[in-house]
Amino acid sequence: MSDSFFQVIARHQPKEGQLETVLELLAELTAATRTEPGCLSFEYFRNVENPDEIVIVECFVDAAGFAAHREAEHFTRIGVEQIAPLLQARSSSKAVATVV
Amino acid sequence: MSDSFFQVIARHQPKEGQLETVLELLAELTAATRTEPGCLSFEYFRNVENPDEIVIVECFVDAAGFAAHREAEHFTRIGVEQIAPLLQARSSSKAVATVV
Repeated sequence: MSDSFFQVIARHQPKEGQLETVLELLAELTAATRTEPGCLSFEYFRNVENPDEIVIVECFVDAAGFAAHREAEHFTRIGVEQIAPLLQARSSSKAVATVV
Repeated sequence: MSDSFFQVIARHQPKEGQLETVLELLAELTAATRTEPGCLSFEYFRNVENPDEIVIVECFVDAAGFAAHREAEHFTRIGVEQIAPLLQARSSSKAVATVV
């Protein structure tokens, strides 16, 4: 693996009562995303200080790997069509990271 | 803020029965670390797929900011002397990240 990668940190705040459903859908999205050739890792966490916030740390080989993720059938079917409508807030940051 | 920063992702696996104590100590370490001039953010999460794993995402202005964190009194007192003995496994990765 190269010493640099494309990293996305996404934050999802589910609507009231939707946390468990969002976590179940994220498990599906995670399994599918990990099969993408451009995906290095994809993990999702609960913020201990704010348990309603889910934090997803996504690493791709490069920007093209992330672009391919956004174009994947499972991203549209699970991320866009099923998860997004259950969120009251979301944000993300993207960076190119070089291992030191 | 500059468009690049120094990022550490640390993983802690507490010894059996020590998870809650480690989380309490991390709350203390987090509050102290956020007062460091070189700290941009410091957050700790539970891994949904592996709830025994705590993941800490730390962002500093630069490598010197991270070095200052490691030299801080609270890092030694809480991180080294109190948290480390309660862990059965730990790892970390470091990267210079450039926002895109």
